[in-house]
Amino acid sequence: MKHQSLAQIAQNLRQHKLSAAELVAKAVAGFDSSESVVHAYKHWAGTQAARQADAVDVFFEAGQDHGPLMGMPVSVKDLYGVPNMPVFAGTDTAFAESWQAPGPLVQSVISQLGIVMGKTHTVEFAFGGIGTNPHWGAPVNPWSGKDAPRVSGGSSSGAGVSLAQGSALVALGTDTAGSVRIPAAFTGQCALKTTHGRWSTQGIVPLSPSLDTPGVLCRTVEDLAFAFAALDGSDKDPVGPRGLSGLRIGVIENVVWDEIDPTIAANTEAALSTLEAKGAIVSGLTLPGVDAVLEIFRQGGLAAPELRSFMDADCPDRITRLDPMVRARVEGADQISSTEYLRRRDVLAKTGRDGLSVFDRFDVLLSPTVPVSAPLQSDMTDGAAYRTANMLALRNTAIVNLFGWCALTLPSGIDGNGIPSGIQLIAPPMQETRLLAIALGVEAAVGRAPELLGRPPLLSSAT
Amino acid sequence: MKHQSLAQIAQNLRQHKLSAAELVAKAVAGFDSSESVVHAYKHWAGTQAARQADAVDVFFEAGQDHGPLMGMPVSVKDLYGVPNMPVFAGTDTAFAESWQAPGPLVQSVISQLGIVMGKTHTVEFAFGGIGTNPHWGAPVNPWSGKDAPRVSGGSSSGAGVSLAQGSALVALGTDTAGSVRIPAAFTGQCALKTTHGRWSTQGIVPLSPSLDTPGVLCRTVEDLAFAFAALDGSDKDPVGPRGLSGLRIGVIENVVWDEIDPTIAANTEAALSTLEAKGAIVSGLTLPGVDAVLEIFRQGGLAAPELRSFMDADCPDRITRLDPMVRARVEGADQISSTEYLRRRDVLAKTGRDGLSVFDRFDVLLSPTVPVSAPLQSDMTDGAAYRTANMLALRNTAIVNLFGWCALTLPSGIDGNGIPSGIQLIAPPMQETRLLAIALGVEAAVGRAPELLGRPPLLSSAT
Repeated sequence: MKHQSLAQIAQNLRQHKLSAAELVAKAVAGFDSSESVVHAYKHWAGTQAARQADAVDVFFEAGQDHGPLMGMPVSVKDLYGVPNMPVFAGTDTAFAESWQAPGPLVQSVISQLGIVMGKTHTVEFAFGGIGTNPHWGAPVNPWSGKDAPRVSGGSSSGAGVSLAQGSALVALGTDTAGSVRIPAAFTGQCALKTTHGRWSTQGIVPLSPSLDTPGVLCRTVEDLAFAFAALDGSDKDPVGPRGLSGLRIGVIENVVWDEIDPTIAANTEAALSTLEAKGAIVSGLTLPGVDAVLEIFRQGGLAAPELRSFMDADCPDRITRLDPMVRARVEGADQISSTEYLRRRDVLAKTGRDGLSVFDRFDVLLSPTVPVSAPLQSDMTDGAAYRTANMLALRNTAIVNLFGWCALTLPSGIDGNGIPSGIQLIAPPMQETRLLAIALGVEAAVGRAPELLGRPPLLSSAT
Repeated sequence: MKHQSLAQIAQNLRQHKLSAAELVAKAVAGFDSSESVVHAYKHWAGTQAARQADAVDVFFEAGQDHGPLMGMPVSVKDLYGVPNMPVFAGTDTAFAESWQAPGPLVQSVISQLGIVMGKTHTVEFAFGGIGTNPHWGAPVNPWSGKDAPRVSGGSSSGAGVSLAQGSALVALGTDTAGSVRIPAAFTGQCALKTTHGRWSTQGIVPLSPSLDTPGVLCRTVEDLAFAFAALDGSDKDPVGPRGLSGLRIGVIENVVWDEIDPTIAANTEAALSTLEAKGAIVSGLTLPGVDAVLEIFRQGGLAAPELRSFMDADCPDRITRLDPMVRARVEGADQISSTEYLRRRDVLAKTGRDGLSVFDRFDVLLSPTVPVSAPLQSDMTDGAAYRTANMLALRNTAIVNLFGWCALTLPSGIDGNGIPSGIQLIAPPMQETRLLAIALGVEAAVGRAPELLGRPPLLSSAT
């Protein structure tokens, strides 16, 4: 199957060279041929989606344009409210129906006549970067070897998988410490974590309101720029690429390379060499304050007390039924005093603010997205192994959330386990458009995922 | 057929007690049973509308809400661009396809999944208040006696008729000197002329950009408030009524009662007595500057030079093919010097600004909407008779446009010819919400059109 960009698809739909019905039928076929292997969805609405596609085609035929996402298959993380679809947020029982009311982001998809294919799996309350879920099972990384399933990354664990299987062309996730970037990196996709406050989190079950951000995953940076423009409401066309010539890339040197898988380090360094060869000015920097914010993160950060506070008020009965990997942190939140909580907030805010001065010297910062490969699912049943892997998976991405900045990930290659690796590009708050323009140039140099990575082995039989 | 408000219909659609398909089928039946008699539409799209209604129902079933107009049949004056529908603007040949691109107002209807039933007739270039059109024939006022067809008012000549026949529940028109209020008054409907600049005129063939305003017609003020809230983008619920107790109504005494039909005067005075009995404080005022602005209006105002300028640039070949009633004014615009044009603009701006001081003493101003009854179509073929009738029909409404204010009309009763008459309520610029709140109170006292007027005789056989 030849890769078509969202922009090309949008044009073909409007020129009646492609119908929404055909597009959704292809998405349904992608689901049908692989879902039993990869388990991307908590709730699948393929039949409703097919009916909606026919309805959307009526409006295409009438020459109407409801927005860039019109007719596009979209998967939505099961943390968001979507009409007529239950919200579990990865827990064992559905939330009250009022949680199905769409917030602004899902309403934007709906209003544009984008087609929600279903709700993708999430780590319970999005509280974890690995992607496991004891209640509903974990999606399987489509890059796993046969009979050795690896995790797909979390917490938006089904989001990247839905793109890989072709059941969606845009995936909505959320990112509190890396939850769109980690699954994107592990499954060979691209993802944007927006600046906190840029997109409303209304209509999304909260993890940590101080840090929660909606995010979006796509197959390429080009598609990410298209989806961002469609969802951002700034009413602009997608941004074009900024050339690499003279682009000042600051490679973070402290912390983010610790304990890194050597094949992931090699992929990152190869990408940096390519960028340098194409005219980028690559140099290293020490990002100040990283140790301090990560120390706070390891102690539960803001998420543990904030999720505990939500659960105490909204669903105290659920605490004892939590995934043990989540429960330990929620219960431990009791030990964090209010003064300690407020101290943490102050340290994070000040560190992020002070850190901005590095952008005097650099246009963008870069790090490996995740320093380690996607673990084997079988290794993640052990609590200690899970905790170590989870902290390491989240570390490089969480820094951006803790600093209050924005970032995206795109693939850098395949690691020693046959799993994609990613590079993270980081920009100051609210600089998403500039970040996407830079990332388009980086993608053009390093290679777009469909050509760079090829097809995931578990899906190679699918169309 | 029992009258249902748009608010009730919207609720029933969302509660699955009514489908968009049923609603549109009823609109199509209204068209089918009467269009051969009343001729509301230049372009009818009933088949497409029925298909769209089925499509809209798919989204209702999915629990989606695309906005208050979702599933509502809407007629659009043939001055607006609507995808896939030709734009004639009342002229003899269709405009270039680029004119079909929707402006913000039609796009809002489309985005809300409102259903455009077709394009209603207009006076050529909207330049006239009577409603005739030699190229396409004039709609027939459904309140005419048998074999004595009367005009429906202009320039939105098909808009009020479309509501009367039930082929639409909301009608988009435009108003440069009375073009939504006159047809509403003549056909027993309500209409709001918005403040210049409040709603974009992009995507609408211009008559006089300095004065052109989009406007909306509905069956009741209640519906008007619903449609206004849906289209205004201020994201508010429809306004509720302001009580009549202590409401200071200023009845304009100069000019607007001159040459008035005594039965229309009686209807207006009866309404005023009712309002007074319900607690309103009714008193008269002389509105300063009316003579000066109407003198400018009689000499071609701003419309003649501005339309001429548009046609010179866009379609000079059409000038000689214009309706003779329009052509005389467009050709005469040559005689107006640029200094005279600028003087007119200054006088209008200053008069409207100075006039605002009357609102220190009054909450709202009131006048008969049109001082005369809808003429017989047969009388309007004579140039002199047309000119006299046209100026008189436009006079009371044009004052509001020339002052730069906003206004609405609602029915006051039936005149001596069996034609509805209207009262005009007038408010300062950008006070639409307050105006609608007042008008809701007035409507509750005077009576809503469906109960006050009954059914138009020409449609009494229709369902």
